Amino acid sequence: MPLLNEHYRKLPGQYLFPEIERRVNERLAADADLAPRLIRAGIGDVTEPLPPACVQALHDAAEEMARRESFRGYGPSSGHLFVREAIVAGEYAGLGIEASELFLSDGSKGDAGHALEVFAAGNRVGIADPVYPVYVDTNVLAGRTGGLASNGLFDGLAPLAATESNGFVPDLPSQPLDLVYLCFPNNPTGAMIDRAGLERWVRWALDHDAVILYDGAYADYVSDPDLPRTIYEIPDARRCAMEFRSLSKSAGFTGLRCGWTVCPRELEGRLPDGTRTAVHPMWSRRWATRSNGVSWPVQRAAAAAYSDSGREQVRSLIDLYRGNARILREGSLAAGLRVWGGVHAPYVWIACPEGLTSWGFFDRLLEEAAVVVTPGCGFGPGGEGYVRISGFNSRENVEAIVERLGELLGTSAATAAERAC
Amino acid sequence: MPLLNEHYRKLPGQYLFPEIERRVNERLAADADLAPRLIRAGIGDVTEPLPPACVQALHDAAEEMARRESFRGYGPSSGHLFVREAIVAGEYAGLGIEASELFLSDGSKGDAGHALEVFAAGNRVGIADPVYPVYVDTNVLAGRTGGLASNGLFDGLAPLAATESNGFVPDLPSQPLDLVYLCFPNNPTGAMIDRAGLERWVRWALDHDAVILYDGAYADYVSDPDLPRTIYEIPDARRCAMEFRSLSKSAGFTGLRCGWTVCPRELEGRLPDGTRTAVHPMWSRRWATRSNGVSWPVQRAAAAAYSDSGREQVRSLIDLYRGNARILREGSLAAGLRVWGGVHAPYVWIACPEGLTSWGFFDRLLEEAAVVVTPGCGFGPGGEGYVRISGFNSRENVEAIVERLGELLGTSAATAAERAC
Repeated sequence: MPLLNEHYRKLPGQYLFPEIERRVNERLAADADLAPRLIRAGIGDVTEPLPPACVQALHDAAEEMARRESFRGYGPSSGHLFVREAIVAGEYAGLGIEASELFLSDGSKGDAGHALEVFAAGNRVGIADPVYPVYVDTNVLAGRTGGLASNGLFDGLAPLAATESNGFVPDLPSQPLDLVYLCFPNNPTGAMIDRAGLERWVRWALDHDAVILYDGAYADYVSDPDLPRTIYEIPDARRCAMEFRSLSKSAGFTGLRCGWTVCPRELEGRLPDGTRTAVHPMWSRRWATRSNGVSWPVQRAAAAAYSDSGREQVRSLIDLYRGNARILREGSLAAGLRVWGGVHAPYVWIACPEGLTSWGFFDRLLEEAAVVVTPGCGFGPGGEGYVRISGFNSRENVEAIVERLGELLGTSAATAAERAC
Repeated sequence: MPLLNEHYRKLPGQYLFPEIERRVNERLAADADLAPRLIRAGIGDVTEPLPPACVQALHDAAEEMARRESFRGYGPSSGHLFVREAIVAGEYAGLGIEASELFLSDGSKGDAGHALEVFAAGNRVGIADPVYPVYVDTNVLAGRTGGLASNGLFDGLAPLAATESNGFVPDLPSQPLDLVYLCFPNNPTGAMIDRAGLERWVRWALDHDAVILYDGAYADYVSDPDLPRTIYEIPDARRCAMEFRSLSKSAGFTGLRCGWTVCPRELEGRLPDGTRTAVHPMWSRRWATRSNGVSWPVQRAAAAAYSDSGREQVRSLIDLYRGNARILREGSLAAGLRVWGGVHAPYVWIACPEGLTSWGFFDRLLEEAAVVVTPGCGFGPGGEGYVRISGFNSRENVEAIVERLGELLGTSAATAAERAC
């Protein structure tokens, strides 16, 4: 009888979003007036339509598929060249990244897990706490950890504390590590690393022969040209970093599904005999063996996001969501809350008032303000005592949230919203 | 420094299709008259446009994505319910399969590899020889095998010989196995298992507590209602089989990317302590952790393939390709070749004449008939001495292939083509 992957048993049941839904439904049942007032600012899903350039590309691709002469079957497993070239031109101009170093995928969630396939068990892995939970979960399922300890962390993973004292940018590790996950702009804290900080991380990785798995899914929210939009803006990062990127939060592809990894040719790991060897041929083989590439209409839409009109439309989307985040940030500050993020990120990270836990503040916001947020404890034990509010919403909803925060906490947040606009 | 997955080194370089291309290009350079005559019948990619119902669904989905009210973001990781329900109604009516047991994916190539994630190392795995190479390759990359032996097989995998003497349907194994891959209708041989044969396999699996990974990517080519289109037509297969299915070769989704797995709730494996436990919750967790689901327009197109008009259009596509395969089969027989498949499958499997190797016959067909086929040795050592010809082509090309086979081998194949129509 086949032996099953026992590591699945280490992962607790999916808790966060089902528990959010349970509490929301309980309140809806108890309070008939809640439904029309309820504003969901929890899950990080975009709300606005696709850029018209991408919609047009979807239509064009549908027509191509309708005619024998332009029909597209199997494509390259790492994506059509014209798409990868469009992304290189749009995202990596002047940074020495080539199209052959880009691998198109159906999004960063998948890529974060796939990346582990080319690395062996036994590596020392560092993961920020709090952070997007998929890095931890995929390590657990791949058998790269021990069990869940009473402190909420998995044995065998090195937590990199992201706290108020370091501005939610983890300090360089004091212990030796082989693989480190970094995510900037950060989900959930909205923190952004500055150039000097990222240079220190790259220098540390080079000095310690470590590889950084850099999740830049929110890169387009970086508005200050002095801040690094990609890790490859840092000299020599090609030798120590793989980057995950996504169109989900820029061009609104959460339902369309397209992202990519960058695996530079200089990136190396070691074999059991100690030989240094390049990761790129393995990553390439991974895609050839495991995938038939991204859907043709999606690839056409991805390329369209980098056309002149597409870029302008994507910019408008990001301006809207970033504007929302700024309003949430300013409004929360005006309501007397302690707040991070919301500048180079769509997320605002809020310390719970009066010693409330994440779920305690969640309940209060749900019951008294009819606003659904995400409890910070869902992103790791380091997130306890915080909640995340998402800027992925309509402007109207965002302004209502700020007004209700002000009412709830007894300050006038509405003026802050005006100021931020 | 991170330790890399050393198992990648066991897999030889990607050889088959690059080598085919190399030989084709060499001939094209040597023979200026070849290019206009060349017919590619090698790679198993569809050639005809998408069914109009699917094209319309792509357009509709594009419009939905263009409006805030109908925009779709993240969906369920295993696919939208209406798509899974349409597939259950179209493929599994009366077989007791529920929508919650279906997991939508971007195709069977991916699924064959993903399946290994829920099974542990150390299982005894049986794989047919010859067969679609992805089963072997994904086991190798997952570290479930030893090295490549001089006989062309990987140590640690049990080859299940598919030969002329068993009609390319492997015999029941004589050794104990935990996981067995079966593929019917078969790629590359075109062989189909009959109901009694599949019943014997299901009985064997139940008796030996084994799990069958059943690849039914070509199920729609089964034209005889007495033959099983899905393994779940066999009583009790719910307790011993996971099934991979695909829209690639039915609705022409090779470029659109959509397939699914069926993981019945009764399917069990064991934990290290010997406890029997269900696979379904693990498979479900796998999708929730690793995927954000299939692209919305693709899901809309998949559901459309099961609408009344979609089903009719898919049927026409399959009739065309199956007709092509029949012409290739009849023409090859008339040319004096020994032939299998081509009845319930889009592929025709041909024994090389005069003791030629797979590559020898490939070369002769390329040089003298300007036809590109797939050498059987690319599907495992058991494929040596055969070539695969694909029915995925225009009728015109298929008729030209048959005519050239007749000319090459000195018989009149053209009459066979007429007969087969």
